Amino acid sequence: MRFKYVVAIIRADVLDALETKLGTLHVRGITVTKVMGFGEYTDFFSKSHLTEHIKVEIFVEESKVEATANAIMDVAHSDVPGAGIVAILPVDKFLHIRTRSEALPDQV
Amino acid sequence: MRFKYVVAIIRADVLDALETKLGTLHVRGITVTKVMGFGEYTDFFSKSHLTEHIKVEIFVEESKVEATANAIMDVAHSDVPGAGIVAILPVDKFLHIRTRSEALPDQV
Amino acid sequence: MRFKYVVAIIRADVLDALETKLGTLHVRGITVTKVMGFGEYTDFFSKSHLTEHIKVEIFVEESKVEATANAIMDVAHSDVPGAGIVAILPVDKFLHIRTRSEALPDQV
Repeated sequence: MRFKYVVAIIRADVLDALETKLGTLHVRGITVTKVMGFGEYTDFFSKSHLTEHIKVEIFVEESKVEATANAIMDVAHSDVPGAGIVAILPVDKFLHIRTRSEALPDQV
Repeated sequence: MRFKYVVAIIRADVLDALETKLGTLHVRGITVTKVMGFGEYTDFFSKSHLTEHIKVEIFVEESKVEATANAIMDVAHSDVPGAGIVAILPVDKFLHIRTRSEALPDQV
Repeated sequence: MRFKYVVAIIRADVLDALETKLGTLHVRGITVTKVMGFGEYTDFFSKSHLTEHIKVEIFVEESKVEATANAIMDVAHSDVPGAGIVAILPVDKFLHIRTRSEALPDQV
């Protein structure tokens, strides 16, 4: 199984919707961090435009990476500036510590 | 020298043991962030199961990546859900700002 | 357009200078997180040497990655220990959520 690392910077208010959406895709395992962003949507030099976003990190099987990125864009999409970004990075190896393998013991 | 980027999401209470273990491997340079996780081990839809973990990030020479991942799994291993994950990502370039190179001035 | 993911761990006091410098390169979109570090520059086993740094994450077009890494090293450079690190990672895909594409609508 090949994995990818999906990183998104999104507005905090869409997190609930994202969790629900990812649940329907059986994407399990999402890490959330508060970050400060200076994006393309802000006056880069003005601290007052600094915005609080969340960073979402998901390790996902390659077969689900497209659906995961689309799910993030669906829930986070907005025509106003500051909607955020999604990036997909390659992963050499992904392991669950409990099983010391890529699979979960009870994974279907 | 080739580097890899090791990312782990683990329980906060194993951090001390991890530092000690990594020290014996001469793995120097570890970054720690508090994160919120919704893992495979939780009821995905229930906020009350949201858990606080730490994210550990380590840039390590390729020759030590296996030992580093094993060290993390050794200290963080648990049969109960929520033990966490370890991922290894490729790195194009890794530089120490002090030396502007991959090597430290006094590195053995 | 190919993108790279630049990750740097630097002292918090150079952030303002970094923003200004990146602005001159038209590098837009930088994410900042407070992290705790145990670096090569500390007594690895001593908690009292644990230092607060910031982690800077930038997704940048390949053509700007060298200039971006140099900008970080220029502003963060110091001969004293703890100057930090810069790493460049490969990116498979980078998307702006607003446009669902790699380009911004008004990008020059």
